Amino acid sequence: MFKVPDHQVAGHRADGGTLGPLVDDLGRFYKPLQSDQRGDTEVAFYNSLCSNTEIPSDIRELFPVFHGTQIIEASDGSGPQPHMVLEDLVAGRVNPSVMDIKMGSRTWYPEASEKYIQKCLEKDRKGTSVSLGFRISGLKAYQSSKAAFWQPVKKVVDSFNADDVRLALRKFVSSNLSLGSNADPDCLYASTVYSHGGGILAQLSRLKQWFEVQTNYHFYSCSILIFYDGESALDGCADPKLKLVDFAHVVDGHGVIDHNFLGGLCSLIKFIGDIVDEDNKCTKCEVKLA
Amino acid sequence: MFKVPDHQVAGHRADGGTLGPLVDDLGRFYKPLQSDQRGDTEVAFYNSLCSNTEIPSDIRELFPVFHGTQIIEASDGSGPQPHMVLEDLVAGRVNPSVMDIKMGSRTWYPEASEKYIQKCLEKDRKGTSVSLGFRISGLKAYQSSKAAFWQPVKKVVDSFNADDVRLALRKFVSSNLSLGSNADPDCLYASTVYSHGGGILAQLSRLKQWFEVQTNYHFYSCSILIFYDGESALDGCADPKLKLVDFAHVVDGHGVIDHNFLGGLCSLIKFIGDIVDEDNKCTKCEVKLA
Repeated sequence: MFKVPDHQVAGHRADGGTLGPLVDDLGRFYKPLQSDQRGDTEVAFYNSLCSNTEIPSDIRELFPVFHGTQIIEASDGSGPQPHMVLEDLVAGRVNPSVMDIKMGSRTWYPEASEKYIQKCLEKDRKGTSVSLGFRISGLKAYQSSKAAFWQPVKKVVDSFNADDVRLALRKFVSSNLSLGSNADPDCLYASTVYSHGGGILAQLSRLKQWFEVQTNYHFYSCSILIFYDGESALDGCADPKLKLVDFAHVVDGHGVIDHNFLGGLCSLIKFIGDIVDEDNKCTKCEVKLA
Repeated sequence: MFKVPDHQVAGHRADGGTLGPLVDDLGRFYKPLQSDQRGDTEVAFYNSLCSNTEIPSDIRELFPVFHGTQIIEASDGSGPQPHMVLEDLVAGRVNPSVMDIKMGSRTWYPEASEKYIQKCLEKDRKGTSVSLGFRISGLKAYQSSKAAFWQPVKKVVDSFNADDVRLALRKFVSSNLSLGSNADPDCLYASTVYSHGGGILAQLSRLKQWFEVQTNYHFYSCSILIFYDGESALDGCADPKLKLVDFAHVVDGHGVIDHNFLGGLCSLIKFIGDIVDEDNKCTKCEVKLA
């Protein structure tokens, strides 16, 4: 009944007898409750989200549906363990292209232990968090021509610099990523995935408007997951979606906006906006030339 | 001809034989070139700003006018030294209320020395920079009824927490700050200073729009100076202005927006917006009661 998710691109994985999330056939995602308070924090956040009537419905849609907790057999054979039961975000998608983007230039919060702060700070400085306000944690992009995914290994993703991030965001919506090829990504799906009416840019912009005013939550070390139907992208039915995930380090905002998340969000919007602008320019060029 | 500025609220001061900025009667502000590259960085920034044709004129207005450099007698008696010649922002104002707000949750840049980073990080964590995305460096608010300024000492300002910042932003536009009084600030000038058509909120919002797209400069340890005519505030002629100052740590943005400054800017806008909203609510209340 339970199996390892096919399209997870970051975080702990349940393969090879280790502890990680599982999915079922009914569209549910079972995430083991992390010990040392992180699990409790995440459950408390989901409960707060469910009961907070101030959150507009178009923002609530950007979070996975939460179905409570359930004790199931853990993936590492350690016996029955409590799991959060969440919506399996990519359920029903055949070959989704998926990117996990960890938000914020700072993944630590002021109240954390000195040891935790130093560990996070080192990672934030090593990756692009400090420089860009976000870092890519993992991605896979479906290549219909090859019936295969382009999925750089963790070590490569972890070493991305600003140029690599720019390139990855272009490759993520391209169709010509035959492995090892140095061809310029064609950004064939940039319009349908990023700039289309209900596309990623529109969803990011909606999220930004909320972050400009919401002062309840500060989302440290939280990710934006973006995904679309790689298989259907050519037909313009990519159905691109954005969801927020990973709330093990959400803290009370105490009446202050989450400027750390918001700054990174604005930076991400600019990166994707630049790709869209460039794509529009190219399309206009081609129209002119034709 | 040169004298110590009357309305400086933060930074090195030229009194008592130390090195600091001077002003003349012609509306010019002479800032000594700091050694160890900081002076050069600031001059290079002003030169770049002058020659950068991409900066819209309504954004250029938010920077002091730069008149080049000039060698004048330094305030500490060390002889002729190079100074930047800038616009004296408060020239012609009789009793201006002034606040200096150092922007960004992080005042250090990735390329700085480890020693400098640790020093900044400690200050950022100790003050409100990390938590709020900005910190108040100094302020003075004119009290016409007493013909005096309310100006908390540096040590007090440096120890401000989030609540103190909120209160200071309210006191800054209040008329009832008799020293030692615990009365609730009346926010009498909130509307004329903050929310009036061309007021501070409108100028902050204009600045925000620019920061959402500009990728040339990253402004570390830079301040927003806000000031208005304390004397004329009662007549609604406060002429509130916002200017960016202190560019000794501006670095190349390399095509990335300054998400660190922008996040703090959005946070500041929310703080001031809340004061305005509260003020509007009170005014409506009074109208109802009347």
